[in-house]
Amino acid sequence: MKKIEQSDLYGKHLICTQDWTKHELDLVLDLAGRMKRERYAYASVLQHKTFFMFFYNPSVRTRQSFEVAATELGGHAQFLEPKSMRLKTEKTAGETVEDAAQVMSRYAHGLGIRILEDKVSEYGQGERLLREYAKWSSIPVISMAHDTFHPCQGLADVMGWSEWFHKGPQYPPDWKTLNGKKLLIAWGHGALARSWCSVQEAMLIGSRYGMDVTVANPEGYNLDPQVLKWTEENCNENEAQFETTNHLTKGYEGAHVVYSRNWMSSEAYQNGELLKQQEIEKALKYPDWICDSKKMSLTNNAIFTHPMPIDRGHEVSDDVASGPRSCIYDVAENRLHVQKAIMALTMGGF
Amino acid sequence: MKKIEQSDLYGKHLICTQDWTKHELDLVLDLAGRMKRERYAYASVLQHKTFFMFFYNPSVRTRQSFEVAATELGGHAQFLEPKSMRLKTEKTAGETVEDAAQVMSRYAHGLGIRILEDKVSEYGQGERLLREYAKWSSIPVISMAHDTFHPCQGLADVMGWSEWFHKGPQYPPDWKTLNGKKLLIAWGHGALARSWCSVQEAMLIGSRYGMDVTVANPEGYNLDPQVLKWTEENCNENEAQFETTNHLTKGYEGAHVVYSRNWMSSEAYQNGELLKQQEIEKALKYPDWICDSKKMSLTNNAIFTHPMPIDRGHEVSDDVASGPRSCIYDVAENRLHVQKAIMALTMGGF
Amino acid sequence: MKKIEQSDLYGKHLICTQDWTKHELDLVLDLAGRMKRERYAYASVLQHKTFFMFFYNPSVRTRQSFEVAATELGGHAQFLEPKSMRLKTEKTAGETVEDAAQVMSRYAHGLGIRILEDKVSEYGQGERLLREYAKWSSIPVISMAHDTFHPCQGLADVMGWSEWFHKGPQYPPDWKTLNGKKLLIAWGHGALARSWCSVQEAMLIGSRYGMDVTVANPEGYNLDPQVLKWTEENCNENEAQFETTNHLTKGYEGAHVVYSRNWMSSEAYQNGELLKQQEIEKALKYPDWICDSKKMSLTNNAIFTHPMPIDRGHEVSDDVASGPRSCIYDVAENRLHVQKAIMALTMGGF
Repeated sequence: MKKIEQSDLYGKHLICTQDWTKHELDLVLDLAGRMKRERYAYASVLQHKTFFMFFYNPSVRTRQSFEVAATELGGHAQFLEPKSMRLKTEKTAGETVEDAAQVMSRYAHGLGIRILEDKVSEYGQGERLLREYAKWSSIPVISMAHDTFHPCQGLADVMGWSEWFHKGPQYPPDWKTLNGKKLLIAWGHGALARSWCSVQEAMLIGSRYGMDVTVANPEGYNLDPQVLKWTEENCNENEAQFETTNHLTKGYEGAHVVYSRNWMSSEAYQNGELLKQQEIEKALKYPDWICDSKKMSLTNNAIFTHPMPIDRGHEVSDDVASGPRSCIYDVAENRLHVQKAIMALTMGGF
Repeated sequence: MKKIEQSDLYGKHLICTQDWTKHELDLVLDLAGRMKRERYAYASVLQHKTFFMFFYNPSVRTRQSFEVAATELGGHAQFLEPKSMRLKTEKTAGETVEDAAQVMSRYAHGLGIRILEDKVSEYGQGERLLREYAKWSSIPVISMAHDTFHPCQGLADVMGWSEWFHKGPQYPPDWKTLNGKKLLIAWGHGALARSWCSVQEAMLIGSRYGMDVTVANPEGYNLDPQVLKWTEENCNENEAQFETTNHLTKGYEGAHVVYSRNWMSSEAYQNGELLKQQEIEKALKYPDWICDSKKMSLTNNAIFTHPMPIDRGHEVSDDVASGPRSCIYDVAENRLHVQKAIMALTMGGF
Repeated sequence: MKKIEQSDLYGKHLICTQDWTKHELDLVLDLAGRMKRERYAYASVLQHKTFFMFFYNPSVRTRQSFEVAATELGGHAQFLEPKSMRLKTEKTAGETVEDAAQVMSRYAHGLGIRILEDKVSEYGQGERLLREYAKWSSIPVISMAHDTFHPCQGLADVMGWSEWFHKGPQYPPDWKTLNGKKLLIAWGHGALARSWCSVQEAMLIGSRYGMDVTVANPEGYNLDPQVLKWTEENCNENEAQFETTNHLTKGYEGAHVVYSRNWMSSEAYQNGELLKQQEIEKALKYPDWICDSKKMSLTNNAIFTHPMPIDRGHEVSDDVASGPRSCIYDVAENRLHVQKAIMALTMGGF
């Protein structure tokens, strides 16, 4: 069994996987793999220690998986909703991030923050808020999904995809199995206006692990140009292909991993406001943009992936989502394992 | 000391006590009795494990007692409110029960659900939701009270009544003390429109434990005919009496246990809506339907029981609720012990 | 190392420090000092035990610090919001305090309650509610801030001030360092209408520990006459000075500790209602009432203290709040340590 190398991750913030070296990401995945095999063997790592979870936005999986993660490490995650707190906003008196972060650093060992598209007045504001917390906090700030990135989801994704391409139970999984595999990130229509965070994180980390990346979406749905550029650079570094297309099916050809998900258009914010209803109406105009078995037949026997919750019937058909090549529940489970690993490394001095 | 028999309850759902054999219910009560005597001796049973609590409806006692129960078993109960989650409803896009239940099964060891009359559009819909969760969940689904049943309350009831009829501290309590005792379930007036769940569970489990059962209510307040029929069958099996009446005081005669509580009428839902205000007005028209000392004097020195919270002055007079034959706090305490036992047996592999 | 004396504090309520003897307060501070030095050495004190936190009002620091405190003692704090509970109010049917408190006493080992000015219809109602809970509760009731007092904040204050006047790391801190020091409690203007609880507790406990106390505020902002009288009596007992003034700067002269904070006027309630908007408008009329470096230069090199959250730019200038003589984060941290000590002594049988 390979010895896990001592890490320098204690106290390190995790706002985007792109901030971390490939070696650091490997450490997380290796430890997550161990933790998946011996789920209750790490119960003293955070013993009697606290992780604060700041939910500007509600969540199912993120809340559940982080709180379970802290419990399984022997610690406790506090569920905190800023709406019931007297934090300063543009409109009301209250506490500054400077004060809040410095006091929280005296109480807890880590601080998770979730803030999505509908709680900010423009794309990127959530990212700036996290970096403001990180500036004042002496404990690690971990993104639990924000408007721009979702690092824990990205790590769970590559862990899940690797397991599916990996033959048999072997530790550690061989992350090299993703080398040269083609990842298709395809926009899906639907009655939601979803954040860019998960798909942007997926293309970043997929390209770090040597995958070819194709992003397919209708016109007007281009993602953050900076993130597309980073992804292209990551691909170049690994001599992998990067491609964007507005074609409905071309991206499916030869794909090994298909990631179909709705996201809002690049015109979603106007005058500091997210035009949610307008986005939903616009997104419903592309009923062809659904991942179904016909499109999946064009691929290289691809697995279907999604960060959940799934909007079945819009983003993907039921038979694909519940089919034999769907890895959605395994990826969801991996959220738990990678978050335990992240906590152990950044807060537990592991 | 009697050895507790190995159980087959690991992974078993608990939606109504009627689903379980008498032997299985005995196992719960025996273990609950042990746990009451040695409250902190079972702290490794759920060590580092998680119980999800889904509160579609808020609660005092249920939340408190389940979360304390998990803590005392060494585990953790997560307080989750679906209103802050993106679950699919008839009106909004969101996650299906199929997806939610399968992912939760990867994280937690048990799932409690509470959904009462005002969160459903007709009687029985809550029951169907629980059975839908149970269908997709690989971890036990435990009712924390739903529109139809309240199994944990029922178990706490018979445990408390047995203790009161049982002479002196002895382990295990002799559940046979309930044999041949008369249970009166009497409708109480008041400014609430309460669910049928607690009284229905009480008549089912009381009749399983050999009690005579009388249900007394004004016309228009009949409970679920199927539950009444099961109760009658349980009584027949034990050669006990079953009776329903619209008479205000007759049921008190010879009673050993008096359970006075408000419940809504059988006309409470119209066009998929609970007419709460109308129910309250109707219920206030029966001021005689209160359990007071005069009525209690007709009984066989009966104890007064109630699942709480009590609507004092409506369902019962203060002198009875706080009197020397009131077992309300003991029954409330037993919620903790029976829930620990249920968790230990269904989730802890006890 | 001085042996901590056995205490009689098990089961004792803490609603105001004035209810406790000086010796009892010393026990808390001594234990808090030990706990600060060996933060994780007390993890079996509340093992598997529960502390209920009743938040009629939301909070940042209080929630965080109490929940962390319980976790570090091996126990668990339940976050409960009465708004989601069916408690009886003047307008709605529900459970009485008598019933709620007696049942909670069966489940938990302590009960914290927070109820501030905007959840009551007149000053003093919160205090009466806490004493009503204490009457029916067989477990200790701890104020987590109510309209009248804030004992945990007061204890954290004197602990923090003592540490700042105390040279070097020494255990136990010498609380006598506060003897003869001058505490200025100065009203601050601002867009909030804050409770009297923290400042009243500070003057009470400061005067118990031998400090001279000056309270400075504009006309119309006098605090509770009974609390002012107690403070004067405490000062007399210690041969210390007590003074009230409406002068803006006089109180700063010679001060060792400056506590600048907004509080509402003595006319804040009318006809059972808190006139919050009117209070804010009135409080904004006194822009001179801010603690700034010019006023601080009149003091005896005073430290700046505040219970947080701070309304920067109103109550205090940024350069003072973030300056080298600001003890705000240390005092905030001490909330954790004193609350652990209080829990250990009143609930842990320490």
